[in-house]
Amino acid sequence: MKLPNFGENPSYDCWLSYRTIKNAEVLKEYTEAFSGISVLEESLVFKTALNELKFGLEKILGKAPADTADSDGGIVLGFCENIKSLPEELASGVEKEGYIVRYRDGKTIIAGKTDRGVLYGVFAFLRLLQLETPLEKINLVNNPANMLRMINHWDNMDGTIERGYAGNSIFYANNGFIDDKTRVRDYARLLASIGINGIVINNVNVHYHETRLITKLYLPEVAKLADIFREYGITVFLSVNFASPVELGELPTADPLDVRVQNWWREKAEEIYSYIPDFGGFLVKADSEYRPGPFTYGRDHAEGANMLAKALEPFGGVVIWRCFVYNCKQDWRDRKTDRANAAYDTFMPLDGKFMDNVILQIKNGPMDFQVREPVSPLFGGLTKTNQMLELQITQEYTGQQKHICYLVPQWKEILDFDTFAEGRGSTVREIIAGKIYPQKYGGIAAVSNIGSDLNWTGHVLAQANLYGYGCLAFNPDRSAEEITEEWVRLTFSSHPYVVKTISSILLKSWRTYENYTSPLGIGWMVNPGHHYGPNVDGYEYSPWGTYHRADCFGIGVDRSVETGTGFAGRYHKENAEMYNNIETCPEELLLFFHYVPYTYRLKSGKTLIQHIYDTHFEGVEQVRKFREQWLTLKELIDKERFEHVLGRLEIQIRDAIEWRDVINSYFYRKSGIPDEKGRTIY
Amino acid sequence: MKLPNFGENPSYDCWLSYRTIKNAEVLKEYTEAFSGISVLEESLVFKTALNELKFGLEKILGKAPADTADSDGGIVLGFCENIKSLPEELASGVEKEGYIVRYRDGKTIIAGKTDRGVLYGVFAFLRLLQLETPLEKINLVNNPANMLRMINHWDNMDGTIERGYAGNSIFYANNGFIDDKTRVRDYARLLASIGINGIVINNVNVHYHETRLITKLYLPEVAKLADIFREYGITVFLSVNFASPVELGELPTADPLDVRVQNWWREKAEEIYSYIPDFGGFLVKADSEYRPGPFTYGRDHAEGANMLAKALEPFGGVVIWRCFVYNCKQDWRDRKTDRANAAYDTFMPLDGKFMDNVILQIKNGPMDFQVREPVSPLFGGLTKTNQMLELQITQEYTGQQKHICYLVPQWKEILDFDTFAEGRGSTVREIIAGKIYPQKYGGIAAVSNIGSDLNWTGHVLAQANLYGYGCLAFNPDRSAEEITEEWVRLTFSSHPYVVKTISSILLKSWRTYENYTSPLGIGWMVNPGHHYGPNVDGYEYSPWGTYHRADCFGIGVDRSVETGTGFAGRYHKENAEMYNNIETCPEELLLFFHYVPYTYRLKSGKTLIQHIYDTHFEGVEQVRKFREQWLTLKELIDKERFEHVLGRLEIQIRDAIEWRDVINSYFYRKSGIPDEKGRTIY
Repeated sequence: MKLPNFGENPSYDCWLSYRTIKNAEVLKEYTEAFSGISVLEESLVFKTALNELKFGLEKILGKAPADTADSDGGIVLGFCENIKSLPEELASGVEKEGYIVRYRDGKTIIAGKTDRGVLYGVFAFLRLLQLETPLEKINLVNNPANMLRMINHWDNMDGTIERGYAGNSIFYANNGFIDDKTRVRDYARLLASIGINGIVINNVNVHYHETRLITKLYLPEVAKLADIFREYGITVFLSVNFASPVELGELPTADPLDVRVQNWWREKAEEIYSYIPDFGGFLVKADSEYRPGPFTYGRDHAEGANMLAKALEPFGGVVIWRCFVYNCKQDWRDRKTDRANAAYDTFMPLDGKFMDNVILQIKNGPMDFQVREPVSPLFGGLTKTNQMLELQITQEYTGQQKHICYLVPQWKEILDFDTFAEGRGSTVREIIAGKIYPQKYGGIAAVSNIGSDLNWTGHVLAQANLYGYGCLAFNPDRSAEEITEEWVRLTFSSHPYVVKTISSILLKSWRTYENYTSPLGIGWMVNPGHHYGPNVDGYEYSPWGTYHRADCFGIGVDRSVETGTGFAGRYHKENAEMYNNIETCPEELLLFFHYVPYTYRLKSGKTLIQHIYDTHFEGVEQVRKFREQWLTLKELIDKERFEHVLGRLEIQIRDAIEWRDVINSYFYRKSGIPDEKGRTIY
Repeated sequence: MKLPNFGENPSYDCWLSYRTIKNAEVLKEYTEAFSGISVLEESLVFKTALNELKFGLEKILGKAPADTADSDGGIVLGFCENIKSLPEELASGVEKEGYIVRYRDGKTIIAGKTDRGVLYGVFAFLRLLQLETPLEKINLVNNPANMLRMINHWDNMDGTIERGYAGNSIFYANNGFIDDKTRVRDYARLLASIGINGIVINNVNVHYHETRLITKLYLPEVAKLADIFREYGITVFLSVNFASPVELGELPTADPLDVRVQNWWREKAEEIYSYIPDFGGFLVKADSEYRPGPFTYGRDHAEGANMLAKALEPFGGVVIWRCFVYNCKQDWRDRKTDRANAAYDTFMPLDGKFMDNVILQIKNGPMDFQVREPVSPLFGGLTKTNQMLELQITQEYTGQQKHICYLVPQWKEILDFDTFAEGRGSTVREIIAGKIYPQKYGGIAAVSNIGSDLNWTGHVLAQANLYGYGCLAFNPDRSAEEITEEWVRLTFSSHPYVVKTISSILLKSWRTYENYTSPLGIGWMVNPGHHYGPNVDGYEYSPWGTYHRADCFGIGVDRSVETGTGFAGRYHKENAEMYNNIETCPEELLLFFHYVPYTYRLKSGKTLIQHIYDTHFEGVEQVRKFREQWLTLKELIDKERFEHVLGRLEIQIRDAIEWRDVINSYFYRKSGIPDEKGRTIY
């Protein structure tokens, strides 16, 4: 059985290319070991799992397995409790959506507690095969660290994607749904293969048509999408407009304490669940960037979120409430108000006031997905509220999939960040997994980077970001290096030189991007609106709360407790002290927390201004190096992807030069301090 | 007879409000003097003139005149040669589109050599009445200085107007023509009243649909507009796409030297003239800002323009060819290329190579309608080519009709600028009138500021710019003060306090706007794209050739001959020397021509930086003063316009503060030099 479209184009296949094994010895061993399949259960997802297993085995082994597994060479697919040969002590280690994959004595077990677990087990098993894992090492027990592992789509029904850099929506066009669901199904498969179990299918900025997704007009179409995602164990959520009762013309108010409003949402929930019985719930951007919310009615965010939560509760739905709330009409002259403080100051007083089917979704940093930010102090701050981490896979501020910027190393730093909330080891990953403070719901969400481009992500190497996100959402303990190597081997080749070269480029790319863009955590030096390319003052005199405060003496935002905005003091003591003191503040965040003279000496011995010059020159050279490295892959990978990445690298070099020259010229003109090395600055 | 819509709303009526005279004595005198009308000719435009005269007299006198003028109290409308009572020496002073208006011994003559002249005479006569001119002073002979007095519309067929700030197009909507022509007719009347005789009805950027205006699809509709404008003595022109033969799918090339292309345009001209026998000709933006042009085929602009001119020649049409040609993909690092040089360097070598039905349309300055620019050196440079001056009535860079910025004083400076081409007195106004070098065609064009807003121009006071443009196009010798006073009296009231107050605001407004925006001729410190509001670096690292080159020591573009781009040397000796020397360069253009340290002392004794601070603080205070002055008019003018202008002034104050603070903060942060007066800079 051939899945539609897959197997025809390596860009389209992503990490599921399922190439036939060339090593004859391994192939022979595998072919004997995996000659038949038997399935112990029947369900929609089991069917998906079985199809995938057959498809993958046929591709990888070049031969379809038999439909039985009575003898040696059999693979058994089933729930742990129904597989008698599975030792109790192993089975008991499998959690709700976890799985066990185990080869022993000619028999293979792929088992889980739920059908999602089994599906993940199948994908894991096929990965092991593709990676030519020795039979004796086919022995995994994996449980997801996070309960919710979600993807957020900022897709609009007109087909555009807010911050999308890979074509248009695969769900919508012309203010309706796309009839052909091939892409949706293939996408569901990609997501399931990395363990994603929830998806929000529309933009958090809910416009006119999207407000109507929760009405009869569109619910049958939403249900069709849910049907497809359900086959892959993925629950569908919708972003909703807090003002829906008003905007749909049914009530004069959307006040969460108004009984009519409460009833309206309760009936609305009932209606939605009549179409989609396993509907996940709502994602809400309220009182943020001109979106309506409870503030309109003098209510707080707990009152707003709980009202929706109550409506969804009878059906098992949840409300995911974004903490991205700040004053987007700030006066740039005002140095006391600090956008970095906004989410913390809004939500901390509400800790413990949210219903237990409300989850706060918190962006990783206090600003907005910059190349470098500290971790939001809400992590470790909130102790009595369900929490999710929000990341951005789509590269809004990190090169928009024209530049290589592999974000797994950034996400690792975020996940590993120690909040000290309950002493050392209170990392973000432990918090969102509910291990520091118990949470009924928790997990991780990220903004999708896919679109209608044949290669899904615009830049082929940006597929690694989607893959890496899924890996970390499932298991944040994995190292960036391991994930990267795995992705390269699944996507391109296990050729050691290819693996080494592409991994090296990917793993260096975030720091490289940081080098030639905004320095030392200051962020925001981009063109307003579209956010591509350098513009040092682009957001300096704007109402968005995004300033660098550079003058002819120095640059940076004083967020210290004593003389600044006090943001540093929002952290627990260990971090607060570290950030508050210019001497102990990590240098990559120096300008985020402090105003620093250009002549200040960094730990390297360089002055700040020289560091700016040096990193910007280095950044361009690093991209040039990427291109040189890439060129050596010519004979080792397919022509299409080779040329594609090469083309993007040319763009990246051109644009990195622009970044370098604009940033360096800006600071040279502002400081009047020449480059010690006498390089050309304009 | 009541003209549609006029007379119902003072904002809509503009300067044609025709208020009944309140002074009983004057009214009695006028009523006796102007009791009947006789018309000696019959034509479309005569009919318009007669209707206007009847309409105006009835309004101003409160009584309809009789249809005969046999007795005393008669007004005779006719051609000079047919009015026997007109002394030969007077009649001989009237030129082609000029007129004579003369009251003597109970009889009034309104006469011209052409029906356009008579129409202008009628409007002039009604103005005199509205201004309550004593009978003995009703004695004018006026001839237009400029042959072509044109309005350019940057209207698109989707209804938008490029750089329009007064609503949508009155011609087009939804990629078609608006059926109801009421606005068009009323607009034609407004234009005729100020002597406009030509109109280009579509944007110089000719997009998909507009390219098709010269095809059967739209020519019948263009003809309908031409029919209306014809009644008011206004000739219709079209902007055309140089690549039309290709874009309309009829030829593989638009090469002007290709015989097929030449034939195509000849047939096209024939087709157009079959619909509109008095069609004016083409306006062409070629090889500019991504528009196609002769450069595509390795031809020069003379070859391109002449090819079109040859096609139009048999029908009496002209080609108006814009000189707005420059490299819009310049590298900001490049300090040798100078956009200011571009038009001069492109067109000077072609002087004398254009056919005599080609006119070069030259923007007033070498850049693009900034609040302050030197005059283009093409004026006085070109000696053997028909020339027109292009101004911009729409306030793209001068406050977008949210701010009061009355441009007549600016235009006066431009028209009075002495190029020294043939010694002292070789002013721009003499050149475009063909008085320095003979020209078959010449004149003046300006980009319209009107749209579908009920008050036509967005800001009621911006009506004065349209009025003033028409006045200066007809007679550039008139003073700004005289035009302004006339406009206020016609538009609002002859109340001396109203006249004084509004005139004072208008006449100061350009300098005020300049004060709080970009200093001393440097220009361009606006937000890219929409061009509203301050952004000092908005165009600094861009490809548009628009730089200020500010650093921590000083600011300005060195355009001197010795060390700069050499632009100063494009002028004739007297001006070249003046501009080239920082000591003699007019200070309002100092930063246009020179890079100047912040500590440089201006003639006022102030340093440059202190001048920047002072003018920006002053500018805001001046706008506040405007508001105070305006408030005193409350009881003296109608509520609607009073409130409207007050509302716009509030916006202007708010935005002037933003300008002041951004500009001052930028230069304070960059220079590190504090304000001597210790005012707040951020």
